[in-house]
Amino acid sequence: MAFAGLKKQINKANQYVTEKMGGAEGTKLDLDFMEMERKTDVTVELVEELQAKTKEYLQPNPTARAKMAAVKEGILADCMLTYGKKLGEDSIFASALVEMGDSLKQMADVKYSLDDNIKQNFLEPLHQLQTKDLKEVMHHRKKLQGRRLDFDCKKRRQAKGSQITDDEIRSAEEKFAESLQLAQVGMYNLLENDVEQVSQLVTFAEGMLDYHSQCSEILKVLVETLNEKREEAAARPKSEFVPKTLADLNIEMLGSQDGMNGGSSSHLSSPVNKPTHLELLGNGQAQARSTNGKRNE
Amino acid sequence: MAFAGLKKQINKANQYVTEKMGGAEGTKLDLDFMEMERKTDVTVELVEELQAKTKEYLQPNPTARAKMAAVKEGILADCMLTYGKKLGEDSIFASALVEMGDSLKQMADVKYSLDDNIKQNFLEPLHQLQTKDLKEVMHHRKKLQGRRLDFDCKKRRQAKGSQITDDEIRSAEEKFAESLQLAQVGMYNLLENDVEQVSQLVTFAEGMLDYHSQCSEILKVLVETLNEKREEAAARPKSEFVPKTLADLNIEMLGSQDGMNGGSSSHLSSPVNKPTHLELLGNGQAQARSTNGKRNE
Repeated sequence: MAFAGLKKQINKANQYVTEKMGGAEGTKLDLDFMEMERKTDVTVELVEELQAKTKEYLQPNPTARAKMAAVKEGILADCMLTYGKKLGEDSIFASALVEMGDSLKQMADVKYSLDDNIKQNFLEPLHQLQTKDLKEVMHHRKKLQGRRLDFDCKKRRQAKGSQITDDEIRSAEEKFAESLQLAQVGMYNLLENDVEQVSQLVTFAEGMLDYHSQCSEILKVLVETLNEKREEAAARPKSEFVPKTLADLNIEMLGSQDGMNGGSSSHLSSPVNKPTHLELLGNGQAQARSTNGKRNE
Repeated sequence: MAFAGLKKQINKANQYVTEKMGGAEGTKLDLDFMEMERKTDVTVELVEELQAKTKEYLQPNPTARAKMAAVKEGILADCMLTYGKKLGEDSIFASALVEMGDSLKQMADVKYSLDDNIKQNFLEPLHQLQTKDLKEVMHHRKKLQGRRLDFDCKKRRQAKGSQITDDEIRSAEEKFAESLQLAQVGMYNLLENDVEQVSQLVTFAEGMLDYHSQCSEILKVLVETLNEKREEAAARPKSEFVPKTLADLNIEMLGSQDGMNGGSSSHLSSPVNKPTHLELLGNGQAQARSTNGKRNE
């Protein structure tokens, strides 16, 4: 049996080479069949690519899921939360950072839900299609190719006067016909299954719509909150900032050692009369530039 | 002058080491000052990190902008458009792929607008803050540290009997006082500038809101279109698929050579009676499984 199998392989390979190199005319299937083959090939590539690109659209690294920061929203959230807390929430800016960090955290959660949804309802069916139906169709097509070669080979050899019986040819013909049928039906079923395929795209699009809608809702609330904080910051009475002097800080000065305490203050206030690009107001009473709330205007 | 400068550096370094190693008490600034320093340090780190993480949230590779596919939406769009066109738009699934590809392309455009917006209105001001105001404040703080060391050093050396005049100490004290003032005012202005800082967060949040809202709108239309296509596919009359036989394809058979044309068809239909996992119906009349539109149920 092993030898018979090998001999068959050699005969088929021989037929293949004869057709390719010798220009022998092999049996041709029709244009409809070739079009189904072409579309099936495109589908095989599509299913492969669609899985790869969808995974790219989702989480690049699913093992990074353990630490919540893995999606970009989560990374930015962590940054804002960390520094908001470090600055101390008595600062309005710090509490705004914490608010925004919280919102980004929520958006990261929503992104994870999208990932789960798309994996389960889009990628998983695609993977099934790839590993079951497409694999089966490709198997029948490969078998058809082999049986066609075998049939042509036997006919050619009989025509050349080899010892090939009509029964052998009839058996090859039957197998050829069987594979032709299985390949056609398999491809037809694949290509006609567009209701299901379009449904899967709907699922994907709905998942993305959910994701973006939920993010919009989270951000609407955030923008409102941040605008309130901005108004709070703008409305807060700004006291004049009086920078402390060395005397205020009880730093032992030469003047104080000589009992010249009173003189030292005029002494110390002089440097601020120098113009600086911090736009200090003179006489040591530097008014904070932020009192008008619009430093860069 | 160069030597005098070097000598000053050595004296300050000496004072620094004496304080650190020898436990000498250096001049201390007060808790308010230290708290401003701490918050300024946090702000410096924050501004650094916030730029890095925001860039990560946006486009990882701006040079890839030339080819439109650079954002994930664009990559997925290209995949769907390519295969949709390859499949041929006579297929409803293919036209659904093209529709979804077009929508993803639009979403990629919206993503690019977000990138531009955030770069211009959030990252650029942060970068300005970092390279101008923060840099200036840090410069004054560094200078303050040096002048404080110089002042302490001169006092210590005079106390030990070195040839340090009162004028030299007074001059060091003036410079110390000047830097103390500039550092305080700089940090105060930075930390009090929360109206502007919160405004920048509002701008960022509004940009993200715009992005997600626009994507939602695009996806709403897409989901509607895809649902129509699904209904169109489901409603389309499904004809029974009759796979072609070898005879249909004019493939020269043994029977036809013997004038047994009529006999060959019964001959060829027999293989399909074998049960296969493609669930063929018997007698060569394989009904497409997709006629009920729900292959996986």
